[in-house]
Amino acid sequence: MILEIACIEIAPENHEAFRTAIARAVEQELSASPGFIDFTLHQGIERPEAYQLHIRWATLEDHTVGFRESARFTAWRDIIGFFFVSPPSVEHWSTN
Amino acid sequence: MILEIACIEIAPENHEAFRTAIARAVEQELSASPGFIDFTLHQGIERPEAYQLHIRWATLEDHTVGFRESARFTAWRDIIGFFFVSPPSVEHWSTN
Repeated sequence: MILEIACIEIAPENHEAFRTAIARAVEQELSASPGFIDFTLHQGIERPEAYQLHIRWATLEDHTVGFRESARFTAWRDIIGFFFVSPPSVEHWSTN
Repeated sequence: MILEIACIEIAPENHEAFRTAIARAVEQELSASPGFIDFTLHQGIERPEAYQLHIRWATLEDHTVGFRESARFTAWRDIIGFFFVSPPSVEHWSTN
């Protein structure tokens, strides 16, 4: 099991629309991708414009190959990419 | 419920000792602090020298006041602080 953490920034006027969009993107695209385990959305307390997407995958390749190279990723970004102030930073973490 | 994320860096030669130390620090100090929910240790896949401590608390103040202003925090840092290459960066996140 690995944890993907994507750090993004959302303009204040778009927070509500972003939350609606990402809920739809998770339901329609992410949750059906092989190896997907679960998703949680975190908002910064010290930096309310900052969000972290925590996505757990069975393996690293389930994200980097299975999801990112699929049409689901394109659809996922089509739904939520509009709201990103700048490109997200993404890293992977092992839990042990 | 809030999530504390502490980002730290550990020198390669100290990883094993750090893991032993933090397991002891969690058991002896952190887990007994009021409002503590759970702890997970994550190691970077792209940056193996990087660790993230994810600590869930019932409220923000359980961490910032209850833990940080207690003798338990001093003891916690006495056990693991030696291993930090630089001061940790700590932020809090709400999940909703």
